[in-house]
Amino acid sequence: MNEGVVYVPVETLREFMYQVFVKSGVPPEDAEICADVLITSDIRGIPSHGVNRLKMYYDRIKQGILSPTTRFEVVKETPTTAVVDGHHGMGHVIGYKSMKLAMRKAKEYGMGAVAVRNSSHYGIAGYYALMAAKEGMIGLSFTNARPSVAPTFSVEPMLGTNPIAFACPTDEEFPFCFDAATSITQRGKIEVLARLGKPTPKGWVISRKGELATDTEAILKGIPKGEYALLPLGGAGEEMGGHKGYGLSVMIEILCAALQNGAFLKDLSGFDEAGNPRPHQLGHFFMAIDIEHFVPLEDFKRTAGAILRALRAAEKAPGAERIYTAGEKAYLATKRAYEQGIPVNESVQRDLKVLRDELGITDVELPF
Amino acid sequence: MNEGVVYVPVETLREFMYQVFVKSGVPPEDAEICADVLITSDIRGIPSHGVNRLKMYYDRIKQGILSPTTRFEVVKETPTTAVVDGHHGMGHVIGYKSMKLAMRKAKEYGMGAVAVRNSSHYGIAGYYALMAAKEGMIGLSFTNARPSVAPTFSVEPMLGTNPIAFACPTDEEFPFCFDAATSITQRGKIEVLARLGKPTPKGWVISRKGELATDTEAILKGIPKGEYALLPLGGAGEEMGGHKGYGLSVMIEILCAALQNGAFLKDLSGFDEAGNPRPHQLGHFFMAIDIEHFVPLEDFKRTAGAILRALRAAEKAPGAERIYTAGEKAYLATKRAYEQGIPVNESVQRDLKVLRDELGITDVELPF
Repeated sequence: MNEGVVYVPVETLREFMYQVFVKSGVPPEDAEICADVLITSDIRGIPSHGVNRLKMYYDRIKQGILSPTTRFEVVKETPTTAVVDGHHGMGHVIGYKSMKLAMRKAKEYGMGAVAVRNSSHYGIAGYYALMAAKEGMIGLSFTNARPSVAPTFSVEPMLGTNPIAFACPTDEEFPFCFDAATSITQRGKIEVLARLGKPTPKGWVISRKGELATDTEAILKGIPKGEYALLPLGGAGEEMGGHKGYGLSVMIEILCAALQNGAFLKDLSGFDEAGNPRPHQLGHFFMAIDIEHFVPLEDFKRTAGAILRALRAAEKAPGAERIYTAGEKAYLATKRAYEQGIPVNESVQRDLKVLRDELGITDVELPF
Repeated sequence: MNEGVVYVPVETLREFMYQVFVKSGVPPEDAEICADVLITSDIRGIPSHGVNRLKMYYDRIKQGILSPTTRFEVVKETPTTAVVDGHHGMGHVIGYKSMKLAMRKAKEYGMGAVAVRNSSHYGIAGYYALMAAKEGMIGLSFTNARPSVAPTFSVEPMLGTNPIAFACPTDEEFPFCFDAATSITQRGKIEVLARLGKPTPKGWVISRKGELATDTEAILKGIPKGEYALLPLGGAGEEMGGHKGYGLSVMIEILCAALQNGAFLKDLSGFDEAGNPRPHQLGHFFMAIDIEHFVPLEDFKRTAGAILRALRAAEKAPGAERIYTAGEKAYLATKRAYEQGIPVNESVQRDLKVLRDELGITDVELPF
């Protein structure tokens, strides 16, 4: 099942991605940010948002729908808030600078929030939340995304996977970091099932006819045509709380669009009405809360840590090996990544070879 | 199925609740708040958190674990943040005053947040979020609660139903208001099934043995003994995203406890180690975001409204009558409540008669 996977050292992969961005026209200091966001995803064990997306960014830059240089314009600012226009630049750079801005405001005033318009795919939402956690703050990061999720009682892809990320420091070796789509799953996980030749679990996806679909190949072919939609956390209908996942997703759509007068829902598809590619016009919302404005940081960390330790020590379900808390698997994955390298599958290897050859990257040696 | 239900006019029920609170020692201006929070729940079609809880508050005041007079102490304050000690007073009053404080800060500085310790059951989380929405702000309201929900891969009730409420104004007749427990369901809904003699849907509840329980009577008897636990949004295990509901719940536990150095998890049970009742020591977290600090309020309302209208107009699943957005069912319920009155079932009627007789309420005429 891991046939053909090659493990690449973290720093090799980071340097390769950095060079791809630079040779695509991204300024060096911005390319460092882009490469860091992507490698952080791989390091934390989230292969769906890391190096596997490198060629997607490259293709979008070539298509002209993603600007390699990022004009970060603060269009409105108050002591605690700002609205930023990213002018279709690199989402990672826009996200990084926006979160830095929110953090500066929070350090001084207790709280800071930044709403962003005209951005692009910014990688893992958790990256920006973690920036705040590292500085003794609570970080929150939200983004909308191209339509793929059906509202409750609908079969039409309307909402993005609209993730919510929350991170905070604890007294443990790693921060608490919750980072999840408000849909049950996202397309990347279905692509993994396709590579393994496995069916899609019933309840993840609904067909346009209203059936819970499980045919992985058919789903992947049909998603771009709108023939299938992902389901919100809680699933189809209301019995298992699907309206809650749906409601959370709408909350995020509002935070990410209405606070910056921006595009939303179908207008985030990346295509114009004639079917031509265009910028995705994504919106983000970042928030930082300075803990010391409430309680001494050490007290907060101790309480947060005690909550997490109590949860892990709860009675396990029969057959369960371990109870995790959010951020713990990423911590374990980080250790593994530095020991073993980042697993790169054959499909991604092919992408990277194309990039290496097209961009003439000769001084980073990929082991394939 | 609605056998014995009597519809009581909204203002009759509000006045009755007000008098119960006043005669229990709650100061008149506080009693108005308590009655308003409870009646708002009934009006919005959430019978689990309205008049049916009236006797619970009364019993707790009599037991001495809930103080009818509320000492609202601001123990720390900055321009955008505050920490409040509620000294085991009425959760509704503490919530109302805390949200007002957050809103004052947001109006002036753009954002405001208040963390609360030593509070008690504050009714529907959405009430406080709606306070902000009525004033042109985004409101967020979170609370922890007595342990009833099992972490992913656990069978032990550790977390509360830990709701998240978010409300904002729109250009429609009613605000967007998302207000939901981070568990699939809560005990009140299982009590409704018991009255109807129906089984509990498989997946809502896990037994201590790790089985998905459906025997409604057994579940209700076993919950107080810790023999059953509610499951987080997404259900048991990780396949349907149960770790996401779990993670959201932990996020809320941290926001509500760690920012105010307070109690958490099992310490919120309402019992000491010897099994004697004691204050619940709940924590809340409130946030207000002033929209005008980002964009003109009318622009925000128009965008939010457009998002909601587009969602409702999405293609319906076969057999589905209607696609709702959060707050819409409550709006429809509000109209019904003022037309028909609030439905009061036989069990609640019995409670209200006890209160009427014990407290000697003679000038509010209940129709039973």
